[in-house]
Amino acid sequence: MVCIFFCSSLSANIPEKQIPFTWELGYSNSMSENPVKWIPAIVPGAVQLDIAKAEKYAPFYYAEHWKDYLWMEDQFYTYKTSFPKPALKGDERCLFISKGIDYQFTIFLNGEELMSQEGMFTPVRLDLTDKLKDKNELKIRINPVPKLFSKPADRSQASNVVKPAVSYGWDWHPRLVPLGIWDDTFLEIQPASYIEDFHVDYTLNSGLSKADINLNISGRNIRNLSFIWILKDESGKEVLKSEEKIELTLESPQLWWPHDHGKPYLYTSIIQLFDNSGKLIQTKETKIGFRKIKLVMNDGAWREPDGFPKSRSVPPIQLEINGRKIFCKGTNWVNPEIFPGIITRDRYNELLNFAKEANFNILRIWGGGIVNKESFFELCDEKGLLVWQEFPLACNNYPDNAHYLAILKQEATSIIKRVKKHPSLAFWCGGNELFNSWSGMTEQSLALRLLNSLCLELDPTSPFIATSPLMGMAHGNYVFRDLNTKEEVFSNMARAHYTAYTEFGMPAPAAVSILKTIIPQEELWPPKPGASWESHHAYKAWVGNTWLCQDIIEDYFGVSSSLEELVANGQLMQGEGYKCIYEEARRQKPYCSMAANWCYNEPWPTAANNSLISYPNIPKPGFFAVKNACRPLLASAKFSKFKWTEGETFFADIWMLNDLPNEIPAGKVKIKLLAGTSEVTILTWEYDGMKANVNQQGPTARIKLPAWRTDRFKVVLEVEGHPEYNSEYTLAYQPRTVERKRSTPVMNQ
Amino acid sequence: MVCIFFCSSLSANIPEKQIPFTWELGYSNSMSENPVKWIPAIVPGAVQLDIAKAEKYAPFYYAEHWKDYLWMEDQFYTYKTSFPKPALKGDERCLFISKGIDYQFTIFLNGEELMSQEGMFTPVRLDLTDKLKDKNELKIRINPVPKLFSKPADRSQASNVVKPAVSYGWDWHPRLVPLGIWDDTFLEIQPASYIEDFHVDYTLNSGLSKADINLNISGRNIRNLSFIWILKDESGKEVLKSEEKIELTLESPQLWWPHDHGKPYLYTSIIQLFDNSGKLIQTKETKIGFRKIKLVMNDGAWREPDGFPKSRSVPPIQLEINGRKIFCKGTNWVNPEIFPGIITRDRYNELLNFAKEANFNILRIWGGGIVNKESFFELCDEKGLLVWQEFPLACNNYPDNAHYLAILKQEATSIIKRVKKHPSLAFWCGGNELFNSWSGMTEQSLALRLLNSLCLELDPTSPFIATSPLMGMAHGNYVFRDLNTKEEVFSNMARAHYTAYTEFGMPAPAAVSILKTIIPQEELWPPKPGASWESHHAYKAWVGNTWLCQDIIEDYFGVSSSLEELVANGQLMQGEGYKCIYEEARRQKPYCSMAANWCYNEPWPTAANNSLISYPNIPKPGFFAVKNACRPLLASAKFSKFKWTEGETFFADIWMLNDLPNEIPAGKVKIKLLAGTSEVTILTWEYDGMKANVNQQGPTARIKLPAWRTDRFKVVLEVEGHPEYNSEYTLAYQPRTVERKRSTPVMNQ
Repeated sequence: MVCIFFCSSLSANIPEKQIPFTWELGYSNSMSENPVKWIPAIVPGAVQLDIAKAEKYAPFYYAEHWKDYLWMEDQFYTYKTSFPKPALKGDERCLFISKGIDYQFTIFLNGEELMSQEGMFTPVRLDLTDKLKDKNELKIRINPVPKLFSKPADRSQASNVVKPAVSYGWDWHPRLVPLGIWDDTFLEIQPASYIEDFHVDYTLNSGLSKADINLNISGRNIRNLSFIWILKDESGKEVLKSEEKIELTLESPQLWWPHDHGKPYLYTSIIQLFDNSGKLIQTKETKIGFRKIKLVMNDGAWREPDGFPKSRSVPPIQLEINGRKIFCKGTNWVNPEIFPGIITRDRYNELLNFAKEANFNILRIWGGGIVNKESFFELCDEKGLLVWQEFPLACNNYPDNAHYLAILKQEATSIIKRVKKHPSLAFWCGGNELFNSWSGMTEQSLALRLLNSLCLELDPTSPFIATSPLMGMAHGNYVFRDLNTKEEVFSNMARAHYTAYTEFGMPAPAAVSILKTIIPQEELWPPKPGASWESHHAYKAWVGNTWLCQDIIEDYFGVSSSLEELVANGQLMQGEGYKCIYEEARRQKPYCSMAANWCYNEPWPTAANNSLISYPNIPKPGFFAVKNACRPLLASAKFSKFKWTEGETFFADIWMLNDLPNEIPAGKVKIKLLAGTSEVTILTWEYDGMKANVNQQGPTARIKLPAWRTDRFKVVLEVEGHPEYNSEYTLAYQPRTVERKRSTPVMNQ
Repeated sequence: MVCIFFCSSLSANIPEKQIPFTWELGYSNSMSENPVKWIPAIVPGAVQLDIAKAEKYAPFYYAEHWKDYLWMEDQFYTYKTSFPKPALKGDERCLFISKGIDYQFTIFLNGEELMSQEGMFTPVRLDLTDKLKDKNELKIRINPVPKLFSKPADRSQASNVVKPAVSYGWDWHPRLVPLGIWDDTFLEIQPASYIEDFHVDYTLNSGLSKADINLNISGRNIRNLSFIWILKDESGKEVLKSEEKIELTLESPQLWWPHDHGKPYLYTSIIQLFDNSGKLIQTKETKIGFRKIKLVMNDGAWREPDGFPKSRSVPPIQLEINGRKIFCKGTNWVNPEIFPGIITRDRYNELLNFAKEANFNILRIWGGGIVNKESFFELCDEKGLLVWQEFPLACNNYPDNAHYLAILKQEATSIIKRVKKHPSLAFWCGGNELFNSWSGMTEQSLALRLLNSLCLELDPTSPFIATSPLMGMAHGNYVFRDLNTKEEVFSNMARAHYTAYTEFGMPAPAAVSILKTIIPQEELWPPKPGASWESHHAYKAWVGNTWLCQDIIEDYFGVSSSLEELVANGQLMQGEGYKCIYEEARRQKPYCSMAANWCYNEPWPTAANNSLISYPNIPKPGFFAVKNACRPLLASAKFSKFKWTEGETFFADIWMLNDLPNEIPAGKVKIKLLAGTSEVTILTWEYDGMKANVNQQGPTARIKLPAWRTDRFKVVLEVEGHPEYNSEYTLAYQPRTVERKRSTPVMNQ
């Protein structure tokens, strides 16, 4: 038995009057059995991590060890902690607060059942005051992983719960379903009168010169008390103050902008509560940003469809912020950890710093994963990153049944009330790919009608879309060339005509140094299906030989002689493929308004994946390629294919891509080819001065390809006096003479 | 001055204790002015009709007299009535009840303002009891027609009101905007305790063998009273009885079906309220039908789109009733009167009888018009006609502003609560063509999000669609051949691939006898733009020479020598064009699930229009063509074009179209051509036995066209032993020798 003690020394980052617990964990096969032993538990965390630590499991990310964790799904878990009755002054209250417990749980105090809940996104706030004894034991019993047992052991088992489906297994996520206390959990001593929720609603006028503010205060015993509300600007200067009034006007608000369009300006909001004697009893301080966000019709979309019989025009996905239509460059964010309980603010921060560095202005928080913790949104507010927030529905047919809808309503209400306070929230979305065959939901699904209703009721100024893709938007492809038609991304994207590309993938292997940490030495080379490579998604992950795609890589560059060569070529193709899509999507502006790749990060180290960042936070070379493709201003070349042959006429359409909110003076771009030490200049284009946020199409550069002894060459665009606008592409090259180790017949001979 | 008297003799159809009023009407230029005179008013009705009668206006439907009524839009109107205090027994209450007052109004009793309301669909229930004097004067002041004065004098002036946009002018509706009391209005003496609203909610189990019933009773002072609820079947037999219980189960309910799939079975529901002494104080009797309606995915729609990048699948519009997917054959219903106040149950009845005769099973109640009065729904319930009910939004961009949304919420709430009680309600729809460029609304429009929310809240078991067309559905074309490309309906429909054709039009002139009642003799022949023909939509109504389309008619059949000939040819083409579309839509089953032409009826006599029924209730020949095309079972021929030339190889694809819910034995169809007295048999097809609700495609009949002296010929399909399945088509014919009076060069010479 582990000794239970009351932790009286508060750590520095715990606010006054929050008292942490020390937890133990036990598990058993059934609800009626008591745990046979107790192990130390880390909260927030996950039951699996505690067991792994206590029982010395090999790390789940290594080899195939994740399979050893599967039995933990079906256990009943009990967290327990003991604590003495805290000293309460006057009529102070003592509350048990948890920001998140995953997923079905019952809470007991001193043996008495206090509450049960299904749902991990609704915080628990339990007033224990009147039930406290001198010594207290708090227990939280957590039910096994909820599963639709009629379904196979995949995401479909999650189709009647409001729990992220990803953990039930995905093409880049092992089956590891978290359970446990996953967010901050503590005792809190509160004054008898207490503001529980405070929110500043505002409406910006059409000129954005004025914000009509409405203060929403709710809490316990506060009806007859007085408050003061203060709004401070970034310099700390008080710009607005209210004593008792809940309707105010802020003149000339500084607007919150995504980082690439302005400053993500944040005010500080301070609400102070006073008791009847005039004594300050509570202060609540938060950040506020003022911005107006809409989804408006994409340019040209009203002109479609043409002729009769005529259907409707596609729905809008053009984001307009503060009256400005912006091109959204972003990515699909997935859980940064298999067990979200261990995600920290620092973990969010390092990933979000890279997102900003990549010139992304929006993150799609994919509905297969969690709704992130508060620190995620605080950081997005600060960094000027927009958040497309999905509800936890993905690739399943979530039912119309009353129980599911009731839990969804509870959870969505909690989510909306929390997240709507953040200026970084761009819009709500029902979930992922729900209107495609593999999900099977439609506009008639009550879950989606409910989410639309709740968003309208609780956050009417934020847009809502039912799912992604909507008509006119597109997901895919996820490989360099189509697995059936062999059409490359270059021609496929040139044919495409969509309002937004909100998922598209290019796989790449992880760095060799990462592979060595997850795949045992003896399996490392050559890679093959089965065992660790497959467990880490290199094989049989999606369709074809995904995600390693060795066959495609070697089709272009020949059989790899080493793991290092295979990885390098795969990573090169990821970067070139992603550049093609981001830049082509930008060329299709303004009809097209968004590009977001699948996916940004990953929750564990994969061997191969579409991610730009390997677990935990290691950018792949493709990350830097994407970063370049997403610069607000750059010279860009459009190619028709990847592999070119000696003597063939190479051509590329040259563009200047401009998302900047300001005019750009005229300039010159030189287009060159580089192969080894050989260099050829094809042409120089003198582009005109450019309007804000408008691209410019230039000439088509053409040249008969020289004879080179190489399997690849570079296309370089040099902007005179502005190296920061330069671009560089690598393409595959086929000399007329067959070179070493080709795996496929040489083309065009 | 007209003598005002209290009408003490109740007419037979007024239930006990309802006391009608006798009304007078006055008008003035401003709110502050009193009317200078009072004229008799008919209630329900419209102020325009009262003025026209009193001031002897020529009928608005004749020539261009509608223009004389335009000034009435901008007047302030006052209805007034006087009545003695009714004798009230005990604590009875006296209520002023109006089921509908159009559009903004204020009610005064004895000079005191009692209420104001904006909105014609929310009934007024005013308890006058405590304010009654011995003699009372009730006044209703009605504001001028609401208009967005910044817009031109067309439907866009209605874009911020919940008032049917059609009356502001449409391509088949003159600008005549009704105002006034438009539904039943009376005094009602009610017991002190009173059931105001009663609704039976039910859920059918998946096997449809059981209805879980929930009684919803609301009213005044009824909390402690007892009630009995009785459900009787069609024979009058009591099948369920409840004393006090509000949750019950009906075993083996007879289901309500649309008339072509079963019996529209209606039960009688009787709720009785008793006072504390056990005395019966109120009885409310209504009809109930039990059915389960869903919109489910159209067959094959999940397989689209194919390839990557991939958008979503189209939304469902396949109607499933009681577990059976049915092909919906229907039409677009428009207001049967310019002034809906004068629509009677009989008027509805005659139009609905024709709809049933036409083999229609669904009526789309187009959002440009009113939501019909109760008797409409009662008749649809009885006749087994499904109702697609739109809210009053059409072809405008209804705003996100708070005032409009508040009125919309009030009106939609009233509409939903009333209409949801009817088994004929198939689904709700936000309005007409809102997601097309001429409207400019999108999924982000708060009005549509609000309507979706309200329907979900108040009527969750009925489907909701945001507008028509949705993606995959189609509206148009509205002419026999495209005005730009000249492509005929025959080839256009053969190329089309949609889940539902929910508007398509074929114009036809009205019968000569009707034309003579609306167009002065001197204008009658030849028709020309301007004056009465144009006022009645023969010219400049939509685009091109719509709706008379004389140029197209004469292109096929030569210059008309008389009005009679022009009308006959135009009416023939309407019928052939409509048959083509209905039958082709049916051939596209099961991907296609619905066909509903634009439009069924008309609110005044048009000179030419897409309607099947001329005002008030006179079927065009096209009506009978459509009726044939909509028979549950028929032989059908598919043509590639309308006009054929001597010596050319004529061909037609032969089908058996079957929407019947039962199997059909094998049979024989003979395909013949008839021209004058000449008859040629092309082939006989022996079709197989047919599964329920499945079509059968047969051979392509081919023949080199003989030399005939005619401008038209018939294709006749004769089903052996089943003349009721026979079909007949008329096509245009071009002999090699040029005949009389061609307006265009002869083809193929």
